[in-house]
Amino acid sequence: LDYQHVQVPFEITLWIMLASLAKIGFHLYNKLPSVVPESCLLIFVGLIMGGIIYGLNDRSPPVMDSDIFFLYLLPPIVLDAGYFMPSRPFFENIGTILLYAVVGTIWNVFGIGFSLYGICQVKAFRLQDVSLLHNLLFGSLIAAVDPVAVLAVFEEIHVNEKLHILVFGESLLNDAVTVVLYKLFRSFCEMPTIKSVDVFAGVGKFFVVGLGGVLVGLSFGFTAAFTTRFTKDIRVIEPLFVFLYSYLSYLTAEMFHLSGIVAIISCAMGMKRYVEANISLKSHTTVKYFMKMWSSVSDTLIFIFLGVSTIGENHEWNWPYICFTVIFCLIWRALGVLVLTFFVNRFHVNTITSKDQFIIAYGGLRGAICFSLVFLLPDFHRKKLFIAATTVVILFTVFIQGMTIRPLVDLLAVKRKRESAPTVGEQIHIRFLDHLLAGIEDISGHWGQYYWKDKLEYFNSKYLQKILLREYDQPKSSIVLLYEKLERKHAIELAQAGQLGHGPAHPSFLSSDRTVTTDQKLEDAPNPDVLDNMQEILARNLYRIRRTGPAYNRHTLPGDSEPTEQAKEILILRHKSL
Amino acid sequence: LDYQHVQVPFEITLWIMLASLAKIGFHLYNKLPSVVPESCLLIFVGLIMGGIIYGLNDRSPPVMDSDIFFLYLLPPIVLDAGYFMPSRPFFENIGTILLYAVVGTIWNVFGIGFSLYGICQVKAFRLQDVSLLHNLLFGSLIAAVDPVAVLAVFEEIHVNEKLHILVFGESLLNDAVTVVLYKLFRSFCEMPTIKSVDVFAGVGKFFVVGLGGVLVGLSFGFTAAFTTRFTKDIRVIEPLFVFLYSYLSYLTAEMFHLSGIVAIISCAMGMKRYVEANISLKSHTTVKYFMKMWSSVSDTLIFIFLGVSTIGENHEWNWPYICFTVIFCLIWRALGVLVLTFFVNRFHVNTITSKDQFIIAYGGLRGAICFSLVFLLPDFHRKKLFIAATTVVILFTVFIQGMTIRPLVDLLAVKRKRESAPTVGEQIHIRFLDHLLAGIEDISGHWGQYYWKDKLEYFNSKYLQKILLREYDQPKSSIVLLYEKLERKHAIELAQAGQLGHGPAHPSFLSSDRTVTTDQKLEDAPNPDVLDNMQEILARNLYRIRRTGPAYNRHTLPGDSEPTEQAKEILILRHKSL
Repeated sequence: LDYQHVQVPFEITLWIMLASLAKIGFHLYNKLPSVVPESCLLIFVGLIMGGIIYGLNDRSPPVMDSDIFFLYLLPPIVLDAGYFMPSRPFFENIGTILLYAVVGTIWNVFGIGFSLYGICQVKAFRLQDVSLLHNLLFGSLIAAVDPVAVLAVFEEIHVNEKLHILVFGESLLNDAVTVVLYKLFRSFCEMPTIKSVDVFAGVGKFFVVGLGGVLVGLSFGFTAAFTTRFTKDIRVIEPLFVFLYSYLSYLTAEMFHLSGIVAIISCAMGMKRYVEANISLKSHTTVKYFMKMWSSVSDTLIFIFLGVSTIGENHEWNWPYICFTVIFCLIWRALGVLVLTFFVNRFHVNTITSKDQFIIAYGGLRGAICFSLVFLLPDFHRKKLFIAATTVVILFTVFIQGMTIRPLVDLLAVKRKRESAPTVGEQIHIRFLDHLLAGIEDISGHWGQYYWKDKLEYFNSKYLQKILLREYDQPKSSIVLLYEKLERKHAIELAQAGQLGHGPAHPSFLSSDRTVTTDQKLEDAPNPDVLDNMQEILARNLYRIRRTGPAYNRHTLPGDSEPTEQAKEILILRHKSL
Repeated sequence: LDYQHVQVPFEITLWIMLASLAKIGFHLYNKLPSVVPESCLLIFVGLIMGGIIYGLNDRSPPVMDSDIFFLYLLPPIVLDAGYFMPSRPFFENIGTILLYAVVGTIWNVFGIGFSLYGICQVKAFRLQDVSLLHNLLFGSLIAAVDPVAVLAVFEEIHVNEKLHILVFGESLLNDAVTVVLYKLFRSFCEMPTIKSVDVFAGVGKFFVVGLGGVLVGLSFGFTAAFTTRFTKDIRVIEPLFVFLYSYLSYLTAEMFHLSGIVAIISCAMGMKRYVEANISLKSHTTVKYFMKMWSSVSDTLIFIFLGVSTIGENHEWNWPYICFTVIFCLIWRALGVLVLTFFVNRFHVNTITSKDQFIIAYGGLRGAICFSLVFLLPDFHRKKLFIAATTVVILFTVFIQGMTIRPLVDLLAVKRKRESAPTVGEQIHIRFLDHLLAGIEDISGHWGQYYWKDKLEYFNSKYLQKILLREYDQPKSSIVLLYEKLERKHAIELAQAGQLGHGPAHPSFLSSDRTVTTDQKLEDAPNPDVLDNMQEILARNLYRIRRTGPAYNRHTLPGDSEPTEQAKEILILRHKSL
């Protein structure tokens, strides 16, 4: 037996296997997941496993390594989140999301930090040795809402799209703020004196860290899209580039102390539309499937590890400090959401209702990011207290809030996500209204979101598509793509029911028959009936797709070049069929 | 800048990226890959990179770590090979393959070892200090044909299926022999005296290592199939199990000093048919795509690393030894193939032609496995000579033989692979002949391959399928699956041409209309025309699939239970449609 040799891959594989089997186990017994969120179940499994390890070895089970978490477990989840981010609601609410993510997080950090410092002054609690800076440092790691925890819970409760994107977007974008504040306070803790220059440098860093992340992400995203232009002959490695470039963007951002989460999200959102157009359908299925699979496994592993790491002797149980941490987390988040939403609602027609505000405040779950950050703290005599407080806050939010949020959503009758996808008619109307609003904004001289969206779309079709897409002359609108997808699905259903291509109903024979007949008649006399027929066939076969694209464009006048080409191609087609 | 923190994943990602980009680069310039095999180009890229690293650092570039090779790079390639192994030609030629793999490899090991020992006795070459045991040890690592190199070259030259499976199967299955002989001679080198018991133990190990690998592989394979029975609710992690269980089988076999390659191939071949039936179509696409992608990347990395590792100062250039190694490798392989094929041809009707024999001998490429094994040798004063000889043999076989084998195949007019897949008619005939031959073998009392195949099939449908498949009552034959696939493809093509579901040709409307009409007429009078019509509709809708399964079975008499059920279900269907 040579266990040493294979230990590392063997244990990794076994952990992943355990996580996957746990997932299967939960789903076998159907009633459980509908009451308890999966994240709670997984933490519970982790607690049991940790208990077993603790019992057998008689020492604390290994805690989740922060490096493993940040380098290997977090990126797949964030990549999945960014790639499948519904871009429309995200950009519609980007202002509100940023306000929550930046101002809200800063508010929470200082609120929690200062009030905990106040608690530390109470002599009975014996906490006087925890300085203000340490409290602020603790505040900076405990204040941030966790994307992994939020995603795990909110995916199961199906609230409306806006509410979901507000909480989820905040949890993703607050990473930049957390990174800056955490590193700032940590360096302050190690400095003998703090100059005012350092504080200002810290404020400047917000922009560097956030915008730098966006820049790194977009440049890798566009490079990825450009690379997939050339993979036509080796389809089999296409999916790889999506993963490689996104991961590189994350690692590069981390290397330069920028926000890796912001980078990978920008990368995924930037490349998505171009990559989708360049790679084959099967490659795309693989990309989507693997992304979901990977993030699902990462997510499972994180919650199990969270449970395992909780067991052990890393904690200092100073109950006043821990309880007040939980209370302050709740209070400051609620206050922050109330105040910020008050300002947001003053500038928006489509306001955030008080029910929604409650869910936003209540959905501020903490998770593995706090946990990893607290273990990354430099060693000092109260680190174990901070670890204990963080563990309790995470378990409280994930278990208590996570398990009660679904009944609360039901009780408050919060607006749910619509189950059905928007119809094609709705999509056309939305598109039409977008163009209309862009025109109105242009005329009124107001540079709003529709104006910028239109400008971006113009820049995209004028330059980016030509560089990044393989066949840039024929971009298909999303409605046409949807139509094609539905047709394909319908065709497969027909094939599975065995109702395709038998007997007289074979469509291709039929339609080619009709073309010939039409042409013959055409030479005799073009009566209106025949013309109608011909037009129908042409619309169905040749010009169906191209016509469905946006015919009106604000930037060009409708030229008459297209009809000429159409006539020419009809001629070519007729020659062929004759 | 914090490079240390992200170094490991960053460098791994960059290597993979380099490999993928190199692959894209070759395919951009179309003429190159048609002359030079990709493996040569990749080694060449590696040589250049190694030269650059050597030039910049002024010390040898890092050699490929044997652990990385055996634990991370080799398994994906072997998994891919096992999963996509054409099982019919493999099992038809299993005897010949085993003869080549076991007897042929032993022949080569001892042939090369003893003749090199003879060379060492020539005083002019100054090699007298290389003992017989060391020569045999060297023979054991240099004798084995490499699956990665063989696959890379033979995939491009498209020889006939039998020839391909003979060379490729040998290269896979000789792993068990190589493992045993290599470890045996290595332990002999370290022993003071060798007892005859040790030699006999070594012979016994062949069976343990080979059959143990098969057992480990099959047990993991069946467990994987069993696990996928329960993944209906979480489709997204289905592909994971295929990879996890195969990898675990490899690691477990390695852990117990069994043949990992044999284990992972048995695992993949064992699980394939059950997993395919259990998982969804999209999951299966993902599995296939990712397997191909992974093996393609591994393969690329191996050849690049092989090039990089060649550069440097790890070599002792004793030219007589090196040249004689190359010559002996060629001679002993040619002799071995000639002698073994002589015996094989005496017992087979379908003989191996002399052209085929030449290609089998010439296709004995060496690759990364030898390379990793020679670096794993314990340190002794002639290790660098062995490294040099191994490097030259690999480069000689991959470059000279790899590049000339395609022209030779053309020149000799070796039978090529048929381009088209067998038609459904051919498939039916093959199936029919199999049953017929199984019957003949049964009657004549000869337990040949058809007899065993039939027994296995019976055992499979009687026990294995019921345990491992989710819907075991309805196994679809491969012909039905092919038909469904073709139908699906046809449907998608129709949908893409826009000729589906418009106008009067809509098949579902048509057929439901006809059903109703038929039913109404049925109540009046069942004239033969209507009955024909009804039968056609039923055959197409309800009983199409089940009827296509093998109706005749040697083990059961045709009962009349089925027609009763059929009548019942027709009744239910009619009630519904009315």
